[in-house]
Amino acid sequence: MTNTARAARTSEIDVLVSEVGPRDGLQSVDRTMPTAVKGRWISALADAGLREIEVGSFVSPKLLPQMADAADVVAGAMTIPNLKVLALVPNVIGAKNAVAAGARSLTMPVSASRAHSQSNIGMTPEQAVQQVAAIVDLRAGTPDLRLEVGISTAFGCTMEGPIDEDWVIELALAAAEKGADSVGLSDTTGHANPTQVRRLFTRLRSELGERSGGAHLHNTRGQGLANVVAALDVGVTTFDSSQAGLGGCPYAPGASGNIVTEDLVYLLESMGLRTGVDLEALIEARSIITEGLPGEDLYGQVAEAGLPKGFRYARHR
Amino acid sequence: MTNTARAARTSEIDVLVSEVGPRDGLQSVDRTMPTAVKGRWISALADAGLREIEVGSFVSPKLLPQMADAADVVAGAMTIPNLKVLALVPNVIGAKNAVAAGARSLTMPVSASRAHSQSNIGMTPEQAVQQVAAIVDLRAGTPDLRLEVGISTAFGCTMEGPIDEDWVIELALAAAEKGADSVGLSDTTGHANPTQVRRLFTRLRSELGERSGGAHLHNTRGQGLANVVAALDVGVTTFDSSQAGLGGCPYAPGASGNIVTEDLVYLLESMGLRTGVDLEALIEARSIITEGLPGEDLYGQVAEAGLPKGFRYARHR
Repeated sequence: MTNTARAARTSEIDVLVSEVGPRDGLQSVDRTMPTAVKGRWISALADAGLREIEVGSFVSPKLLPQMADAADVVAGAMTIPNLKVLALVPNVIGAKNAVAAGARSLTMPVSASRAHSQSNIGMTPEQAVQQVAAIVDLRAGTPDLRLEVGISTAFGCTMEGPIDEDWVIELALAAAEKGADSVGLSDTTGHANPTQVRRLFTRLRSELGERSGGAHLHNTRGQGLANVVAALDVGVTTFDSSQAGLGGCPYAPGASGNIVTEDLVYLLESMGLRTGVDLEALIEARSIITEGLPGEDLYGQVAEAGLPKGFRYARHR
Repeated sequence: MTNTARAARTSEIDVLVSEVGPRDGLQSVDRTMPTAVKGRWISALADAGLREIEVGSFVSPKLLPQMADAADVVAGAMTIPNLKVLALVPNVIGAKNAVAAGARSLTMPVSASRAHSQSNIGMTPEQAVQQVAAIVDLRAGTPDLRLEVGISTAFGCTMEGPIDEDWVIELALAAAEKGADSVGLSDTTGHANPTQVRRLFTRLRSELGERSGGAHLHNTRGQGLANVVAALDVGVTTFDSSQAGLGGCPYAPGASGNIVTEDLVYLLESMGLRTGVDLEALIEARSIITEGLPGEDLYGQVAEAGLPKGFRYARHR
């Protein structure tokens, strides 16, 4: 950990960048990154100043063998100081496994598209909301359990096309009523535009107040950071992203490309918004992906172009 | 020309997309696209609904042999109905040649960075402003001559780093005082961030009013469309872009990548802003680049991912 990164880590932040590469990124790659390399990658990401990392998914290893070591990965990540470790769970069975592995912060997708919901988690949206309730009930034995829900395909769906916005908000409210600590919106398949992002997050924040969650945006059509600017405008302060742009949803055909963490951090810092992340350390961590998945394509313009001459972090302005 | 494209062409627009591929794009490629192919490409772009195209640069063919046929290209483009043909000129000599070729709308760069100004056009910024005055004087013999100035490196420079914003505005005012019809701002080297874009264009518009020009943004660090959203916020309605992301400034090391026209049009239309451009016809025109420059890299996420299911143009909303 560099001195700069350490300084970044202890400073206040304006926007929370939630790294999803070890989960969303790795699950979309056919090969499996070795568990030990995952551990080193997660440590390096935390050392670079990331405060929240989604480290794995508690799904059947038959569906996603890349995530079969999720329990070990969670256990390792939980030893890193000052890091919020998120585990994705598709249902209450996954949630029990995650809790058994030591996870205390879970995230669950509830898809607004019926077709996507069925193909992604084998349930209707209403059944998914019932699973939210069942997971919340686990608090009886694990009082410090937190559950974040993300409404998938909130901005459109590769299979269904446009998604009714009233329905998206209705689902978000239902998840909150069942006890989810926060509910965010996900552009799972790269359909969102800035006008829609402003409109839907404004409604979400108006309906859910402090329980309105972050934005999970994809760059499928190059619109990812444009949508971040729109979300920032209406007060969103948490964004998911994936280092080197690894990832996407394997069950949504044509959906690829989480927004790139390096490019997102650069955007925020250059706008004067503190992320706590050290970009040089973050870019260095890309080499660990290559080590664990030799030859895998890495994306991101900032890593390629480098920081511009005279670049200053928000905390130094 | 498809019926859809023809309909698009005759409709009203909210935002003007100014295509710079045939100039900014082609001058950054080492090989030269044959003149006849340039002509067909420009026609196809106009058929797709683009109303303004920067077709060439009147610089010394020793410096940019790719632009040696600029006079022929301008003459051909001037025969296309309802198309505003722009020619780039670095000085009054280039302007005279452009006018002789039939061009009536010129664009001239005035760089805010002294180092970039010297390497790009061999003049100080003050000397460039004097050239603006000399070009405006050509109106004595050519009353319908229009001159648009773009302040290059307005948001930062690869060689000098940050550029003083007062100085950028001072230069823009000086160019307007010398008689430029409009003055825009260019992020020549991909330094701009949305906060800065809002701040500088707000000042420009406040100082120049109706003579404030458009935004020429690059995607060097992936921030191009994020900066477009910021510029739209403060009232900018003209944006330069390059089909397939061809281009950049060959004299600014590390600067590459105009924003991609296809991705820009998609952004604007999906936000409900009419561009008059037919995306399918635009994407088809990419094949002409490949014909003229076999093997050249083409960029753009929308062309790769395709339009999303249920996509609707702004004019159909």
